[in-house]
Amino acid sequence: MFELLSLKNGLANVDGFYCDGINCGLRPNKEQGDLAFIRSDKLCTIAALYTTNRFRAAPIKHALQYGELFEGNFILINAKNANAMTGEKGIEDIKEILSHLPKEINAINPIMSSTGVIGYRLSKEKIINGIKKLNFNAKNSNAAANAILTTDTFKKELCFEVVLDNGKSFKIAAIAKGAGMINPAMATMLCFIVTDAAVPKEEIKELLKEAVDESFNRISVDGDTSTNDSVFLMANGKSGVYKREAFLFALKELTMNLAMMILKDGEGSTKVVAFEVVGAKNDKEAEIAARNLSNSLLVKTALFGADPNWGRIASTIGASNIECDEERLEIYYDDLLIYSKDEPQLTPQKEELAFKIMQKESFKIRCNLNIGNGSFTAYGCDLSYNYVKINAEYRT
Amino acid sequence: MFELLSLKNGLANVDGFYCDGINCGLRPNKEQGDLAFIRSDKLCTIAALYTTNRFRAAPIKHALQYGELFEGNFILINAKNANAMTGEKGIEDIKEILSHLPKEINAINPIMSSTGVIGYRLSKEKIINGIKKLNFNAKNSNAAANAILTTDTFKKELCFEVVLDNGKSFKIAAIAKGAGMINPAMATMLCFIVTDAAVPKEEIKELLKEAVDESFNRISVDGDTSTNDSVFLMANGKSGVYKREAFLFALKELTMNLAMMILKDGEGSTKVVAFEVVGAKNDKEAEIAARNLSNSLLVKTALFGADPNWGRIASTIGASNIECDEERLEIYYDDLLIYSKDEPQLTPQKEELAFKIMQKESFKIRCNLNIGNGSFTAYGCDLSYNYVKINAEYRT
Repeated sequence: MFELLSLKNGLANVDGFYCDGINCGLRPNKEQGDLAFIRSDKLCTIAALYTTNRFRAAPIKHALQYGELFEGNFILINAKNANAMTGEKGIEDIKEILSHLPKEINAINPIMSSTGVIGYRLSKEKIINGIKKLNFNAKNSNAAANAILTTDTFKKELCFEVVLDNGKSFKIAAIAKGAGMINPAMATMLCFIVTDAAVPKEEIKELLKEAVDESFNRISVDGDTSTNDSVFLMANGKSGVYKREAFLFALKELTMNLAMMILKDGEGSTKVVAFEVVGAKNDKEAEIAARNLSNSLLVKTALFGADPNWGRIASTIGASNIECDEERLEIYYDDLLIYSKDEPQLTPQKEELAFKIMQKESFKIRCNLNIGNGSFTAYGCDLSYNYVKINAEYRT
Repeated sequence: MFELLSLKNGLANVDGFYCDGINCGLRPNKEQGDLAFIRSDKLCTIAALYTTNRFRAAPIKHALQYGELFEGNFILINAKNANAMTGEKGIEDIKEILSHLPKEINAINPIMSSTGVIGYRLSKEKIINGIKKLNFNAKNSNAAANAILTTDTFKKELCFEVVLDNGKSFKIAAIAKGAGMINPAMATMLCFIVTDAAVPKEEIKELLKEAVDESFNRISVDGDTSTNDSVFLMANGKSGVYKREAFLFALKELTMNLAMMILKDGEGSTKVVAFEVVGAKNDKEAEIAARNLSNSLLVKTALFGADPNWGRIASTIGASNIECDEERLEIYYDDLLIYSKDEPQLTPQKEELAFKIMQKESFKIRCNLNIGNGSFTAYGCDLSYNYVKINAEYRT
């Protein structure tokens, strides 16, 4: 039907897209970038999904003048300052900054995307001077991927080439940042996806939503939702190729892989865990339980300590206010049955096996409520000393 | 109207009540108690409030055979093992243990209350042998208060004498345990209140509920709700004295003071913070915001680091899905205005003042949404390295 090839150098592969990243002085360490752009030489259809936080940051308010589905060709991205809770002035700052883009690139409906600390105006001068240093004809995907990071420890950059059975192909690529997933003070989840596939305008939003619902919307590092979370999908159609099924598959592969990279790089995270709840009364109840498991402090600290203490799993499910019954519940770590009513007590042998599973970099906790057919999988990470260290440290 | 006197030695002051605490071998350290009782020589009206966790522990299921308002005179309490997720056998174990109480004390509707790890059967033999070591005519309140602790670092024990203006008086006293507040693996919130006031049976439940709603139900150490949380109020009426207003006042003083002691002793807690939300659309929306603030990992780590980063406060409110507006929001640390639309940026002077407030053992964060008249105060503590340490450590 179609073939998926993984390519290096992320955005650089995609026809018609240009990008770069530099340090413009927002970060004291000149080695770290803090300003990046992504542009297309052909007008794109852009679909955007934004945070549900009621206090949306200025860049989101500014971009929303074009709606969540619009035509455009340019995004400017800065790290270190979220431009959130800055009122009307925050929006005026964006307009002024964007007015300094060079005429030659013919930016249409240009927008900004920001990440960093809340409550400070942008350093307009630094960013405007930085614009002069950006190479608008470069394809420096690595530099762009690095410049959008905050407390992330590695860059998140992916590209797939999708080859259809008629031999024609299109490409899709993305860069993302996470760290505190949704940490309003030092990090924010941002993702920029570009493609040269000829995605129809009437489908693009729904495709993005489906992929994000199954990936970014199922992960949690700390359960907080920031003022700046955004996912953009820019499609310039330059390949002239499109096949819905293949495109959606590639888009989902891309977002799911990025989501797992974000979790792996969650602040202080040492392991990634899938919380699969099955046999719930319905999907909604399974979702509530799975999300509560991924956010429970007691579960997260037990994961860090590799403590096969299934009592915390059971207690979190019981506290979720969903239909459940201790006589029916079964808890598995990967394929190891760790609790059922017939075997409530952990034997030393089982405890050792469970301990080994929990020491892996990633594993699955599966809870079968044996009540109905509802299921949901959420993804989380452990809570370590480093999470506290990263987040308790003074900003300056 | 009435006078409240604070007395030492907790339960020992209250006429007709006896208590003791010993080590029966559940804890390896013989210095630490693990078995206690509270009894009255006169039949009591007992009101009980239990966890909302769907997986209620065996002692709660056993006690519920008498309902949440019943007559009785005896509670046996053990630490170290929650007797939760133990099925019918867990209840049979309790019945067998209680059948070994000495005839002389004439236990009527005796119940158990347990705390500790989930998923293990009680060591019946140790507890039954322990019963022989308890002195059922003792008034060893300190020993009882110590024997019910788990990861708590100090005992929680209080007594008030309430003197009415006619010179008559009654006493009310309590012991409690907390630590992980509601930590299903190593700790659980339990509270035992006794009084010789002549509280009418038709009022006692509602009085207890009102006091608990304003105290224990407003604190959070880690947002988890255990399988064993219980609060009991035993009234034996021996003083012959009762005045509703005075009794409710004393009961609220008692529960609120114990709630603050539990927070102060929350696992790894270094400070207690009141989150007061006012000016919300209604009380329910204020409650949602206040509780989210007290549970946010980013807020809790900022508290630990004494980082006056109000952006995390604002972002948590914005993520609460309640009506709010950044143009109207005001955030105060104690009486210091730290955010309003006119002063979004922290000045270095203000930052220093805020830093000083945040270093105190307790302070208030007040958020005025300036939308309506809804208000609610929740109480929380910070999240420190020690919380992770205590909860990540292997159980054994």
